[in-house]
Amino acid sequence: MDSQTVGILGGGQLGRMIVEAAQRLNINTVILEEGEQAPAKQINALNKHVNGSFKDPNAIRELAKKCDIMTIEIEHVDTDSLKLIQKETGVKIYPDPDTIELIKDKYLQKKHLKKNEVAVTQSIAVENSISALEAVGDDFGFPFMLKSRTMAYDGRGNFVVKDKTSIKEALEFLKERPLYAEKWAPFTKEVAVMVVRSRDGNVYTYPTVETKHVNNICHTVYAPARVNDTIQKKAQLLAHNAVKSFSGAGIFGVEMFLLPNGELLVNEIAPRPHNSGHYTIDACVTSQFEAHIRAITGLPMPKNFTSLSTPQTHAIMLNVLGAQEANGELQLCKRALETVNASVYLYGKSTRPGRKMGHINIVSQSIEECERKLDYIEGRTDKIAQSVESDASVAGISKQPLVGVIMGSDSDLPVMSQGCNILKQFGVPFEVTIVSAHRTPHRMAKYAIEAPKRGLKTIIAGAGGAAHLPGMVAAMTPLPVIGVPVKGSTLDGVDSLHSIVQMPRGVPVATVAINNSTNAALLAIRILGTSDAHWFSKMESYMTNMEDEVLVKADKLETSGYEQYLSTYKK
Amino acid sequence: MDSQTVGILGGGQLGRMIVEAAQRLNINTVILEEGEQAPAKQINALNKHVNGSFKDPNAIRELAKKCDIMTIEIEHVDTDSLKLIQKETGVKIYPDPDTIELIKDKYLQKKHLKKNEVAVTQSIAVENSISALEAVGDDFGFPFMLKSRTMAYDGRGNFVVKDKTSIKEALEFLKERPLYAEKWAPFTKEVAVMVVRSRDGNVYTYPTVETKHVNNICHTVYAPARVNDTIQKKAQLLAHNAVKSFSGAGIFGVEMFLLPNGELLVNEIAPRPHNSGHYTIDACVTSQFEAHIRAITGLPMPKNFTSLSTPQTHAIMLNVLGAQEANGELQLCKRALETVNASVYLYGKSTRPGRKMGHINIVSQSIEECERKLDYIEGRTDKIAQSVESDASVAGISKQPLVGVIMGSDSDLPVMSQGCNILKQFGVPFEVTIVSAHRTPHRMAKYAIEAPKRGLKTIIAGAGGAAHLPGMVAAMTPLPVIGVPVKGSTLDGVDSLHSIVQMPRGVPVATVAINNSTNAALLAIRILGTSDAHWFSKMESYMTNMEDEVLVKADKLETSGYEQYLSTYKK
Repeated sequence: MDSQTVGILGGGQLGRMIVEAAQRLNINTVILEEGEQAPAKQINALNKHVNGSFKDPNAIRELAKKCDIMTIEIEHVDTDSLKLIQKETGVKIYPDPDTIELIKDKYLQKKHLKKNEVAVTQSIAVENSISALEAVGDDFGFPFMLKSRTMAYDGRGNFVVKDKTSIKEALEFLKERPLYAEKWAPFTKEVAVMVVRSRDGNVYTYPTVETKHVNNICHTVYAPARVNDTIQKKAQLLAHNAVKSFSGAGIFGVEMFLLPNGELLVNEIAPRPHNSGHYTIDACVTSQFEAHIRAITGLPMPKNFTSLSTPQTHAIMLNVLGAQEANGELQLCKRALETVNASVYLYGKSTRPGRKMGHINIVSQSIEECERKLDYIEGRTDKIAQSVESDASVAGISKQPLVGVIMGSDSDLPVMSQGCNILKQFGVPFEVTIVSAHRTPHRMAKYAIEAPKRGLKTIIAGAGGAAHLPGMVAAMTPLPVIGVPVKGSTLDGVDSLHSIVQMPRGVPVATVAINNSTNAALLAIRILGTSDAHWFSKMESYMTNMEDEVLVKADKLETSGYEQYLSTYKK
Repeated sequence: MDSQTVGILGGGQLGRMIVEAAQRLNINTVILEEGEQAPAKQINALNKHVNGSFKDPNAIRELAKKCDIMTIEIEHVDTDSLKLIQKETGVKIYPDPDTIELIKDKYLQKKHLKKNEVAVTQSIAVENSISALEAVGDDFGFPFMLKSRTMAYDGRGNFVVKDKTSIKEALEFLKERPLYAEKWAPFTKEVAVMVVRSRDGNVYTYPTVETKHVNNICHTVYAPARVNDTIQKKAQLLAHNAVKSFSGAGIFGVEMFLLPNGELLVNEIAPRPHNSGHYTIDACVTSQFEAHIRAITGLPMPKNFTSLSTPQTHAIMLNVLGAQEANGELQLCKRALETVNASVYLYGKSTRPGRKMGHINIVSQSIEECERKLDYIEGRTDKIAQSVESDASVAGISKQPLVGVIMGSDSDLPVMSQGCNILKQFGVPFEVTIVSAHRTPHRMAKYAIEAPKRGLKTIIAGAGGAAHLPGMVAAMTPLPVIGVPVKGSTLDGVDSLHSIVQMPRGVPVATVAINNSTNAALLAIRILGTSDAHWFSKMESYMTNMEDEVLVKADKLETSGYEQYLSTYKK
């Protein structure tokens, strides 16, 4: 695609996946890394690679001779050499060596972002002394983070200073490293956004994802993040502005803290592909690795090329870390291979406990389905979660309710229980309770308002007489509300029907037939099916069975004759 | 993933893509092919590959020493050697050498299939003489196909014998090759199915696709094929039975003719990955290459791992052939890179006119969208087709309709248009049309059945009088259906309301108030909001605004007094 050769400083898994993306476009790559068996070198036999360290000026010079464009898969490179080489040889380097230099020193990175009005955690450079750290404690309060300014990754350069007594331990842990302190961010979630910048300065953001860490190492990534639309957009904007403030082209990973008040702070930026972006290989239009190659070689970067593959795409990325027993992590991979829509990526590294050996991308049309698959892969259940085929017990009755069934009075229960039976039969997690519009108006308001937050997708409300419950709940929640008119002692239920169905413009209630909570439940399942293929396909089977049952009866009626049939007919 | 090494006979693009799939699973591969720069060798630096021909017994023996399992990317190999080596060394060979031997001679292949009751074109072995071909013409009629039994691919061993006078030319074209003749199949489409067979004999079929050839070379592949469900299933079944009849594990490509009467005939089988399966890389749960690796190494092959990624997935594969001017084909690739959801795969081959240099996979939620992108890539339009899906994840709005608004008669439009206005106001992509239960029953069935496949999430149906439309549509789709009772000239709309709401158990219709299509639209948006935060938050804002508007009025009423307010009140 492009006759330029790309030199990569670093030959680990990120380099490997850059090489893979480049090869699909016939773009030549050369690797600088120690050893001939580095993951990135394993998959490129076209060139003689450079054997050496990305911190060694001579090795970098050797790489420069073999390529037209240089890039990095790790920021801890010798940036002085890069700057010199760029000046002397005219080799293009992306991202800009100045950017790499700023970012690889986390304190300079924070200062730069602050100067550019990008929200970051408050931080200060500190000396390697007890008194200096005590002063930080007095200023920031405890706990605070003590971090190495350089060479820190996967939490290995961080220490949480809980109180004055732990200062000594902190200094011991980080001894002889250049330090800075960060005020504690009481975050509720960690989110991240991949951002790619073209050579002419255009910036494109990937979706906002949620990262979960275990022992300071990324464990899983949820895409998109389970936060509201505003937070998603805000995080993309913050990441966009952060990357916009640096020069040069390429992909960047922006990690952020989400605070309880909805505020977002940049935690760290990586000037390269990032673990939180591995999900893009399967869940986005273009992978972070191809995006990086496009950016640094000047290939087209069309609008939306960083989007999720479809609006329904959901994904979970799971890191495969070296197990305690050699190759024990392969058990995880085997379970992933047994799971439909889970893709395994191993990096060709020798196994070592805690080492990043590979990752698994799970893709589905709902995050719930992804989580069911994750449960199987991580061995929390032995029930395999096969895409649309997964059965009800996998969906799990014990799980968080998706449908709320409420009624104005316990006298409605005989009618409403029929709908509950249907939900049970389909395996839909649901809850049942009494909420009366007229007798418990405040409880009703609380129920309606909190329903979406609690994960409910639909509310079924049954009521009789001057049936206000469905309409009032609909007035206080943006969820779809299904109304079941319950037949009272007079008027044959027409009073309930009209009270529920004849809502004013602005507040819809999905009304079903009088006393027909069965249909209310079926409608709720159809609604779930619009976003989760599991429920969609169960509804398809239900409809087919219903057809089959009638056909069996038709056959019986045809063969036995109508008189015989009638004589045995049970109403 | 697996410590066995896989040896591959052949190092072209199919071998390259097998290697790529194997590497992601840490499975080692060694290639037998002439030259050090073969596409498959370029991307594997871990081993010293074998330099030689896959027809050379010595070279095959050398490969056997380096691996535990042998496989092929081309069937024109020395099968006698394979059989001997398998006996002598215990190296496992997939597919079975007997299978390769049967398939590589197309006439033996046909005979085998016929014997196993797999429908094939009628064929006969012929001598290389005018009189023999005249006899075939008398028997089969003209035109008929004259084909080389061996070493024929991309149409290079085929000749259409139009009439008696062209027999001489046919023999000249195929001189000195072993020949057979095939009766002409007056096909309307060519379809194909990839089939994968596990080592224990289980057979899994990929979806049925449609292949389009230009100058006897595959030009595009449409997935799934644009044929009805029955034909799709029949083709999968035929391919399943064909592959079932052979022994050994691995992936097979089955090409078929679709005749005007709906009959299907197997045209050719390839015992390896196939050009018609390249779409699987982006459009299926598992690519044909990974499926092959799983099959021959004994890795898990879960149910449905050969399905389309989602029920909505559609794809077109476009081959990139060497252009007349050197590298002219890169223009095609550049346009693909400008197109969202089009992925480029180049094979690292030197350019030559007509040579398969790479392929492009276009994936979308409808075949029409794929075709629009194809039109741009092939230069038939300069209007770029940005993915409609992707717009959604960025702006929350996709152009593909999510809601279908239908009505029994154009007289319902004044009522139904109010709902359309709401959808427009919210920016929901929707479609509007007339579908009458009583006057266009078949159109209604088609609409209801195809709605989910077309990406619709909800259907709003308006009808008056004996209003059957909402209920009938609900009976034929698992999507939620919202019914709007339209008021007729008598009975004040109560007839419509009861016809729509009083559905039998089993088939729910979400009924709204008489003439209130506004609420139907708002309900549809609430349903979309259960899975897409964008619509949820828009509904939240709408409800807040509605509250604000009333509060403004209340304030005005309180300050101006009720008499003054009434005097300016516009109904």
